[in-house]
Amino acid sequence: MAASTMKLTLFLLPLFFTFSLIISSHHPLDPLTPSEFKKVRTIVKKSYPSGLKHNLTFQYIGLDEPDKPVLQSWLSSKTKSNPPPRRAFVIARLHKETHELVVDLSNRYIISDKVYGGNDGYPMLTNDEQTAASALPFSYQPFLDSVKKRELNLSDVVCATLTVGWFGEEHSRRAIKILSFYKEGTANVYMRPLEGVSLLVDLDEMKIVEYYDRSRLPMPKAEGTEYRLSKQKPPFGPPLNGFVIEQPNGPGFKIDGHQISWANWDFHLGFDVRAGPIISMASIYDLEKATYRQVLYRAFVSELFVPYMDPTEEWYYKTFFDAGEYGFGQLAMPLEPLTDCPANAEFLDAYYAGEDGTPVKISNAFCIFEQQSGSVMWRHSEYAIHGELITEARPELSLIVRMVATVGNYDYILDWEFKPSGSIKIAVGLTGILEVKAADYTHTSQIKEDAYGTLLADYTIGVYHDHFLTYYLDLDVDGEANSFVKNNLVTKRVTDKNSPRKSYWTVESETAKTESDAKIQLGLKASELVVVNPNKKTKPGNSIGYRLIPGSISKALLNDDDYPQIRGAFTNYNVWVTPYNKSEKWAGGLYADRSHGEETLATWSLRNREIENKDIVLWYTVGFHHVPCQEDFPIMPTLSGGFELRPTNFFESNPVLKTKPPSSKHVNSTNQP
Amino acid sequence: MAASTMKLTLFLLPLFFTFSLIISSHHPLDPLTPSEFKKVRTIVKKSYPSGLKHNLTFQYIGLDEPDKPVLQSWLSSKTKSNPPPRRAFVIARLHKETHELVVDLSNRYIISDKVYGGNDGYPMLTNDEQTAASALPFSYQPFLDSVKKRELNLSDVVCATLTVGWFGEEHSRRAIKILSFYKEGTANVYMRPLEGVSLLVDLDEMKIVEYYDRSRLPMPKAEGTEYRLSKQKPPFGPPLNGFVIEQPNGPGFKIDGHQISWANWDFHLGFDVRAGPIISMASIYDLEKATYRQVLYRAFVSELFVPYMDPTEEWYYKTFFDAGEYGFGQLAMPLEPLTDCPANAEFLDAYYAGEDGTPVKISNAFCIFEQQSGSVMWRHSEYAIHGELITEARPELSLIVRMVATVGNYDYILDWEFKPSGSIKIAVGLTGILEVKAADYTHTSQIKEDAYGTLLADYTIGVYHDHFLTYYLDLDVDGEANSFVKNNLVTKRVTDKNSPRKSYWTVESETAKTESDAKIQLGLKASELVVVNPNKKTKPGNSIGYRLIPGSISKALLNDDDYPQIRGAFTNYNVWVTPYNKSEKWAGGLYADRSHGEETLATWSLRNREIENKDIVLWYTVGFHHVPCQEDFPIMPTLSGGFELRPTNFFESNPVLKTKPPSSKHVNSTNQP
Repeated sequence: MAASTMKLTLFLLPLFFTFSLIISSHHPLDPLTPSEFKKVRTIVKKSYPSGLKHNLTFQYIGLDEPDKPVLQSWLSSKTKSNPPPRRAFVIARLHKETHELVVDLSNRYIISDKVYGGNDGYPMLTNDEQTAASALPFSYQPFLDSVKKRELNLSDVVCATLTVGWFGEEHSRRAIKILSFYKEGTANVYMRPLEGVSLLVDLDEMKIVEYYDRSRLPMPKAEGTEYRLSKQKPPFGPPLNGFVIEQPNGPGFKIDGHQISWANWDFHLGFDVRAGPIISMASIYDLEKATYRQVLYRAFVSELFVPYMDPTEEWYYKTFFDAGEYGFGQLAMPLEPLTDCPANAEFLDAYYAGEDGTPVKISNAFCIFEQQSGSVMWRHSEYAIHGELITEARPELSLIVRMVATVGNYDYILDWEFKPSGSIKIAVGLTGILEVKAADYTHTSQIKEDAYGTLLADYTIGVYHDHFLTYYLDLDVDGEANSFVKNNLVTKRVTDKNSPRKSYWTVESETAKTESDAKIQLGLKASELVVVNPNKKTKPGNSIGYRLIPGSISKALLNDDDYPQIRGAFTNYNVWVTPYNKSEKWAGGLYADRSHGEETLATWSLRNREIENKDIVLWYTVGFHHVPCQEDFPIMPTLSGGFELRPTNFFESNPVLKTKPPSSKHVNSTNQP
Repeated sequence: MAASTMKLTLFLLPLFFTFSLIISSHHPLDPLTPSEFKKVRTIVKKSYPSGLKHNLTFQYIGLDEPDKPVLQSWLSSKTKSNPPPRRAFVIARLHKETHELVVDLSNRYIISDKVYGGNDGYPMLTNDEQTAASALPFSYQPFLDSVKKRELNLSDVVCATLTVGWFGEEHSRRAIKILSFYKEGTANVYMRPLEGVSLLVDLDEMKIVEYYDRSRLPMPKAEGTEYRLSKQKPPFGPPLNGFVIEQPNGPGFKIDGHQISWANWDFHLGFDVRAGPIISMASIYDLEKATYRQVLYRAFVSELFVPYMDPTEEWYYKTFFDAGEYGFGQLAMPLEPLTDCPANAEFLDAYYAGEDGTPVKISNAFCIFEQQSGSVMWRHSEYAIHGELITEARPELSLIVRMVATVGNYDYILDWEFKPSGSIKIAVGLTGILEVKAADYTHTSQIKEDAYGTLLADYTIGVYHDHFLTYYLDLDVDGEANSFVKNNLVTKRVTDKNSPRKSYWTVESETAKTESDAKIQLGLKASELVVVNPNKKTKPGNSIGYRLIPGSISKALLNDDDYPQIRGAFTNYNVWVTPYNKSEKWAGGLYADRSHGEETLATWSLRNREIENKDIVLWYTVGFHHVPCQEDFPIMPTLSGGFELRPTNFFESNPVLKTKPPSSKHVNSTNQP
C-alpha cells in the first residue's frame, strides 16, 4: 500500500529549470529530463489550458522510446547524424476520461491524442492525488466523529491510500480507499491501525463517496514498534564493527550521463516513473573477439502483484499491483549513504513529472557500487603434478545498481548485479513494515477460526500474502533474432547389456515454436532454459546462449477464477516468452488500477504467436509466499530472492580466465591479542 | 575424482611435536590435536606392531565425540570438573580386514576393537595409498608401452586415482582405477586425458591387477587450457580495481582455540578428515532474554555424490562419493590470502593423521572473515507522517567460515555464513576443472549419437554429471527436543457469499510423527519447513522455530534400481528427518567406498522411527545438474548453491532492531573527473 504522500513534495522538490537548458549528448534511451518534462507540460497545456472545464492531470509521463529498428540502425550508423526524434508518452485524465498522448519534443507538437475507450482499468495513480485524497478525512465530520468516539488525538491520526482492485463489477469509478493509523508513541504507524474505519474517495471528483466505521477492535500498543535508532533504549546490539574501504585507483566504473561502463560491461541505466530502473543495451566485451556483444536490450520490473489472503470485508480488496498502481519509480526513495549503500557507492538522481506536469527530483534515487563480497570468481588447486602444488584463484568483483521503492509499508530493494564472468544477477530484497490487522487476541490459544495470519504481538495479526515480481527481459543474445530452448534433462534406460549401468540422463533440446511452448511452471521438470541465437554458433558448434537460473520458486495459489488472479494471471506461469512488441510492456496491463485482466501478458499470449528465431522477450516472475513471523515485527529483516542470467556457450571459453586479481590489502588499526 | 597426491606431503608436512606438549583448555568437541594423533598411533601400534605380519594402515582417525547427554550436562555444570573422556575413533585396515577401534586417550588404551564383518563397502581412502597407487604405472611395462606407442613423454604423464563404485558384484576388493593425463604444455592435465588407458590397483596388495588400453582417441590440445596467470599472454582482462579494507577497531570476531564468537553468535569450529568443517553448538545471544540460546548442535557435509552420465565402458563407474571415499577434510587446500579469502580474513590450520598415523598439517585450512557485501539488513522510509521523511536503514554484516576441498579436478568452496538476524546461510561454490572425455569430434555436426556431454573444444567433451551435497543438520532449537513441522500453504475456497473474493490461502500445520512423514521432494507443494521446539512458545503463543529455506532444487534423475542410485538413495528426497543417533552420521554409509547402500540414511529411515518432540536431525541435499558449457573451459567460473536456516518465531521480535549501524567510510585516492 502507498501511504499518504502529504508532505512528500517537501523532500522531492519541484525544479524550476531555466528553459534554455539543453543537454547536449542525449542517448535516445535517456529518460526525460526536467526541461523535457516542462516542454511536455507546455505543449499539452496549450491544447488543454487549465480552467474549470480543463482540469487535466498527468498520470504518467515517460519516454516514448524510439522504435527498436530505428534505434538499432542509428546506433550502428557511423555519423550518428539524425538521432531518432525525442518523444514522450503521456497518460492524462480529463473529464473522467483517459487520454493517451504522444508528444514530439523536437517539433513541439502532439502527434496523437487518443481517448482510451476500454473498460480495462485506470492509469497509475499520482502521489499528488493520493496526498490530496488522504487529506480529505480531516475535514469529514463522520471521520472526525469516529476518531473522537475512540478518544484519539486527531493530530496523531495518519491516513494512507490503498487501491481497491476489481471484483467483477461491470462499471467502476477511479477510486481509492483510505485507511487510518495512529502515530502516538511511534513512527511505525502501520502497527497501529484504526481497524474497521475506511473511506472511499472518488479520485476524479476528489471527494469521499463511502464511509464505514464497522468494528471496534483494540488498537495495538505503540510499545515495541519503534524502529528509529534515536528512540531505542539500551541494551543495544548486537554490536558490529565498522569498515573503511579505500580504492587506491578510484572506482572501477565510469558514469557518462546514463551510460555506465565497468570491467567488460557497458549498459544504459534509465528511469521510469512506473518501472523504476530500466537497464538497456547491456553488452559485454569479448576479449577474444575484441568486440562488445549484445546481451540485454531492455529489462525492468514490469509488475509487482501483492495479494493478501484475508477474504473478510475489511481486507478482501488488498490485491495490489504495486508498479502499475503506485509506480515503482514514483516511490523511489532517496538512498542513504553508508546504510542503504556501502561507503564506496556513487549516487544518481532521477526525475519524474508530478500531476501538474512539473518535474520532481528524487535525490540519490540510484546507487552504483563495486562489491567485493569475499566470493571466489574461480579457483583450482592442482596437486597431481609431481613436486608442485599449484593454486590459482581470483576474487569475485561485481557492479551493483540499486534502487529502493517504498510502497507504503513495504520496501523493495531492487539490485542489478553485473559480473565479469558475464552473469547478470537480478535480486529483490523485501524489507520494511508488515501490513497488519488489529484483532482481539493476545495469545494464539484464543484463536478459534482462521485468523488469516500470524499473531505477532498483542492485537496484531501479520496477514498472509504473496509478492510476485514479474521482470521484462528483452534479451538480444548476440543479435536480435533469438529462440527459446528448453534443454530437458531426460533419464534414459541403458540398453547396452555390457554396461554395468542401468540409467543415465542426457539433454534433449526443445525449441519453443510458439508462445504456448514457453509457458513454464518451474519445479515440475529438470530443464535448463536458454535464450539462444540460432543464427550463430561457437567454434565447436554450440548454440550461443544465455541461461535463466531461477532462485526459489513460488507459484500462484489463488484459484484461476478469483478476480485478483484473473487480473494477475501473468503469475500463472513462472516463465513466458513473447515476440517483441513495443506495446507489450506491462504484464498486468497498461491500466493496472482496477483492471479486468483483459490486456495483459496472459491475454497477449493467447494469440500463440511464433517465437522461434524472432526478437523475443522473456518474462520471469520471482515469487514469495509470505507467512509473517515475529522476527518481521516491528520491521522486517531483508528477505531476498532473485535469479541469474548466465552465459552458456556465449563465449568460446571462460571470459575471466585472463583477469588479473585486483590488488587488495587489509589494514587493522587495532589487532586482536 | 582425486588425483595423485604424489607430492602432496611436500606441502602438508608431517609434524614431529614434542610429546610433552599438552593443550590445556580443550573443548570436548575440539578435533584431535597433533599430539593426540601421535598418542593414538602409539597406542594402536603397541597392539599391532609393524612388521611383515602387521602392516596396519590408518584409514580414518577422528574424534569420537562425547555422547550428547554427557557433553550437554558437562557444559551446563558450573565447575566443569570432570570433562568427558577424550576418545578417538579409528578405522584401520589389517590383513584385508577393516577394524573399528575406539581409543581412550586419557587412560591410553583401546576400549574396543571390532572387525567389520559386513560386505557394505570399505573405509575412506588415504592420500598416501592413492599416491602410492598412482606411482605404480611408471614401473609397469604394459603402461610404459602404451605411452611409447602414443609417442608421449613419460615424464609428462600424470596419473590420477578414481574410485570405482559398485555395480552389483557380490564380492569386491578394495581397488582403485588409475587414469592418466598429459601435462605437456599445460598445468591443466584434466583437459588432456589418455582416453582408453586405465589400470586397476588392488589397494590392499598395492599392485596393478587389471590393465586396459582400449581405444586410441586424439588427445585434446594443450592450447587454451592453461589457467595460471604466469602463462597467459595479452590481452589481459577484464580489468578490476583493487580495494583496501581497514577495520579501525579490528575484526569484530574472536577466536579462542576452536571457539568463535562474533556479534550475537557463538559456535565451535571443528575439523574432520572426512567431513571437513564441523560447526557445533552454535548459539545466539537473545538481547531480550539476556541469554544465549541454542540453534545448531552439530552440522557438516555428510556426503557428496557425483554421478557422471556416461554409461560406456570407460566412464560408467564414475559415481563418486567425494566425502566418504576421498575425504573432504583430507583434501582441504591451503587457502590463499587475498584471492581465496578477502584481505580482512584470518586463517586457521587443521590436522589429520596420515596413513601411518602421524599428524599432517594443512596450513590455512580455514578462513574466517567479516563480510560487508553492501546488502541491507533492514530498512524503511516513512513518508505518511506529516512533514517528515523518516529513513532508517542498517547495512548487513556477516561472518563467514570457509574451507575449500579440492577433489582432484573439482574445487568445492564450503561457506558457513552467520547473520546477526539469526540466519545461517550455507553455501557451496563449484569451481575448478571439468572432468572431460577425449572424443574424435571438432564440431557438433559430427556427433551422430549421444556424446553424453558438451563439446567444449576440439576432441573435448565435458561429460554431464550431478553434484549432490547432503548436509547433516542437528538443530537443537532452544533445546534438544524438537519437532519437524510442515506449514502447508493450502488454497481455500471462500464460502462466505458476502465476500467478493473466491479464494485465499492459509497455513495448515502438519507435525511429522515418524520419519516417513518427513521425506520430502521439494517443489511439489507450497510449504514452509520448520524445526520447532514444541515445548516452548513465544509470548503470543507461536512455536519457537528455525525454518529451512531451500535454494534451487534438483532431484535425483537416475533410476531407483541403478546401482549408483541404490548407493546414493539418500538423494531420493531433498529433506529427511531422523531421530538423533550417534552412529548415523554419514548419509552414504560409514563405508562409502564400493558400498552397496545397505547402511545409509535411506535404510535407517525405513525403520520409520518416531521423530515428534525428540532430538532430531535434519538432512538437506543441495543438488546441481551440471550440463557443462564452454564458459566452464578451461576452468569454471564459480556456480553457487545453498540454503538458509532462518529463525521463525524464535525471537519475540526482530533481533537486529537495536543494532547500531557500524561506522563506515570510503576513501578514494584518485577520484573520477
